[in-house]
Amino acid sequence: MLGQLLKQQNFPAGRIGVVTDTHVGKHYREHVTQTLSASGFNPVIIEIPAGEEHKNLAWLSFLYDKLVEGRLERTSPLLALGGGVIGDLTGFAAATFQRGVPFIQVPTTLLAQVDASVGGKTAVNHPAGKNLIGAFYQPRMVVIDVETLKTLPQREFVAGIAEVIKYGVILSPDLFLLLEEELSALLDLNPFLLTRIVKTCCQLKALVVEEDETERDYRAILNFGHTLGHAIESATDYKCFLHGEAVALGMVFALRLSQLRGLCRSTTSERVCRLIKRAGLPVHIPKNIVVERLRIGVETDKKLTGGKVKFVCIEDIGKTCFEFLSVNEIAEHL
Amino acid sequence: MLGQLLKQQNFPAGRIGVVTDTHVGKHYREHVTQTLSASGFNPVIIEIPAGEEHKNLAWLSFLYDKLVEGRLERTSPLLALGGGVIGDLTGFAAATFQRGVPFIQVPTTLLAQVDASVGGKTAVNHPAGKNLIGAFYQPRMVVIDVETLKTLPQREFVAGIAEVIKYGVILSPDLFLLLEEELSALLDLNPFLLTRIVKTCCQLKALVVEEDETERDYRAILNFGHTLGHAIESATDYKCFLHGEAVALGMVFALRLSQLRGLCRSTTSERVCRLIKRAGLPVHIPKNIVVERLRIGVETDKKLTGGKVKFVCIEDIGKTCFEFLSVNEIAEHL
Repeated sequence: MLGQLLKQQNFPAGRIGVVTDTHVGKHYREHVTQTLSASGFNPVIIEIPAGEEHKNLAWLSFLYDKLVEGRLERTSPLLALGGGVIGDLTGFAAATFQRGVPFIQVPTTLLAQVDASVGGKTAVNHPAGKNLIGAFYQPRMVVIDVETLKTLPQREFVAGIAEVIKYGVILSPDLFLLLEEELSALLDLNPFLLTRIVKTCCQLKALVVEEDETERDYRAILNFGHTLGHAIESATDYKCFLHGEAVALGMVFALRLSQLRGLCRSTTSERVCRLIKRAGLPVHIPKNIVVERLRIGVETDKKLTGGKVKFVCIEDIGKTCFEFLSVNEIAEHL
Repeated sequence: MLGQLLKQQNFPAGRIGVVTDTHVGKHYREHVTQTLSASGFNPVIIEIPAGEEHKNLAWLSFLYDKLVEGRLERTSPLLALGGGVIGDLTGFAAATFQRGVPFIQVPTTLLAQVDASVGGKTAVNHPAGKNLIGAFYQPRMVVIDVETLKTLPQREFVAGIAEVIKYGVILSPDLFLLLEEELSALLDLNPFLLTRIVKTCCQLKALVVEEDETERDYRAILNFGHTLGHAIESATDYKCFLHGEAVALGMVFALRLSQLRGLCRSTTSERVCRLIKRAGLPVHIPKNIVVERLRIGVETDKKLTGGKVKFVCIEDIGKTCFEFLSVNEIAEHL
C-alpha cells in the first residue's frame, strides 16, 4: 500500500532511506520493507533509539553516516516512519543531506499526525534548548494511517490529544465542542472520529502555515502552550514529560495568564482546563522543577525578541492574542 | 565603514555574531569590533582554527554552542568574515540556528569574493565527501573589499584565480581574454583590475544562480572542474591542495575529456591549460594519489545520478555541455 502510494507519486525506483526508531521499527519494519520492495524500491532501514533525548546533533551525525554508507543518492527519498522525534530529525537530515533530498512523512503517533507532519518545521535539540537547530523544509508527501495508533502506548496517545485541544482552542470552536462531546470515543480510538479529527487538525494547521510559512508573525499562534512547554521539557532534561504533556502544562499557564490579564473570561479559561484534565493530561507544574532552570529555558527559547518573551494568549475559544512578558514577570506567574 | 553599511541596511542594533578564523581574525578582529561598535552593534567574535579540515560537524557544533553562549537572538545577524571555509560554515549555521537568522558575508579571499559569497550554497564536509551536508541559504548582504586581498598569502590568491579562469571558460570569452592579457597586473594585485574582475565574476555567477537557485539543472555548469576537484581534495584529506588548486586539476581533466571525446578542438583545450599554468596553478594530478581513493571520492560526490557522474565539459570558451561517465570510465582517463 505505502509502496504503491509512493510509486503513484512518481518517486524514482531504487534506494530509499527509511528512518524509524526502535519501538516503531519493531512493529512496522518488516511490513514497510515488504511493501516498498514490492513496488520496486530498495529500502535502507535506519534505526534510532526511541526518545526525545536522541533528537540531537550526535544522532543526526549518525544518520548522515548511515545515509552515506547506504549510498543514498541525491534523488533518493528519505522517509520518516515514527513520531515527532523521528520526523524532526529525519526532516532536518533530508533538508541538509546533499543540500536537500526528497522527504516523505509517515507519522505513527497522534501528535505527529496532527502536528509535526504539516508545516515543514524540522529540527534537533541543543543542550540549551529544544529545536534550537533546524530548518524549514516541506515534505513532498505525508501518508497518515490512523490504524497505526493502535500500537501506540496510551500515555503517548493522550499526550497527542493536547495538540488536538490546542487546535480547537486557538482556531476552531467547532473542533473544541466536538472534543468535549466525543472525548470518550476518541479515547476508545474510534477510527471514524480519529480520521475526522486528524484531517481537521491538518487542515487547520495547513491554513495557518500557508499564510506564514517561515513564522514571521501569524504562525506564532501555533506556539500556544509551547513557549513554557519547551522550557519545562528542557528544565526536566526531557525525562519527566512527553511533549504533549508539557504543552498541556504550558496551555494551562497561558490560560491563567489570559485570565489574570483580563484578556478572557474565567469561565473560558476554566472550560479549557477542564477538557485538558478530562483527557488525562497534567495540569499542575510540579513544585520540584527548579524555577531558575525554567527561567533559563524560557530565556533561550527562540521566541525571545528584544529581551521579552512572546506568549500566545486567548480572548475566547478560537480567538488568540499575544502578550510580551519579561523573564521576571514569567517567574511571578509560575 | 562596515558598521555604517550594516546600519544603512537596517540591521537591528544589538548583538551580532562575527565568525572568523585565527588567521583572518589576527588582521581584522580589532578593526571589525571597532567599526561595528561605533555603529551601535554589539559584536560577539567567534574564532575557528583556519583550514578546510575544520569545516565539519564538530566545529559547527562548537559554533552553535558559542551562539547560545553569546545569547544571539533570532533577529541577530551572523557575519562571516573570512574565506570560503568560514563562509560555508557560518552560512550553514545561519541557515539552521533557530531555523534561520540573517546572514552577512564579508569574504576576504579572492576565491570567496568571486565564488562563495554569491549563490547561497552553505555546507560542511563529511568524511565521505566535501559539502555533503548543507543548505541553500542566501545572504542578506555581501560586502567585498579587494583591499583585504593584500593580507592574503600568495598561494591562496593564486588558488582563487582558478575560479576566475573558470568563469571565463564557462561563461565569458571576454573575461578569458582579459585574463590572458592582464595576468601580470592581476598577480600584482592592481586594485582597479581586481575590482573589475571580482564584479564581473559575481555578476556572471548571479546570472546563473538566478536562473536556477537550487541546482536542478543549469547551475551545474558552475561545477566545471569541481567534480574531480572535490574528489582530489577528499582523496588527499584536504591536506595537499587548496580548493582552487584542486579545481585547476579538475579543469585540466575536464578539458582533456572534452578534447578526447571530440567536444572541443585541441587548440581550445590547450589555450585554457596554458593560462592555468601561467597563473601558477598545478596541472598534473600527482601519481601518488591512490586511484581507488579518487574513485570512492567521485562516487560519493553529490552529482551522482543513476550510477553515472555528470561532468561539465566545454565545446568552446564560453560554451559548456555535460558528459556522463561511469566510475570505470573516469579511472581510464585519469
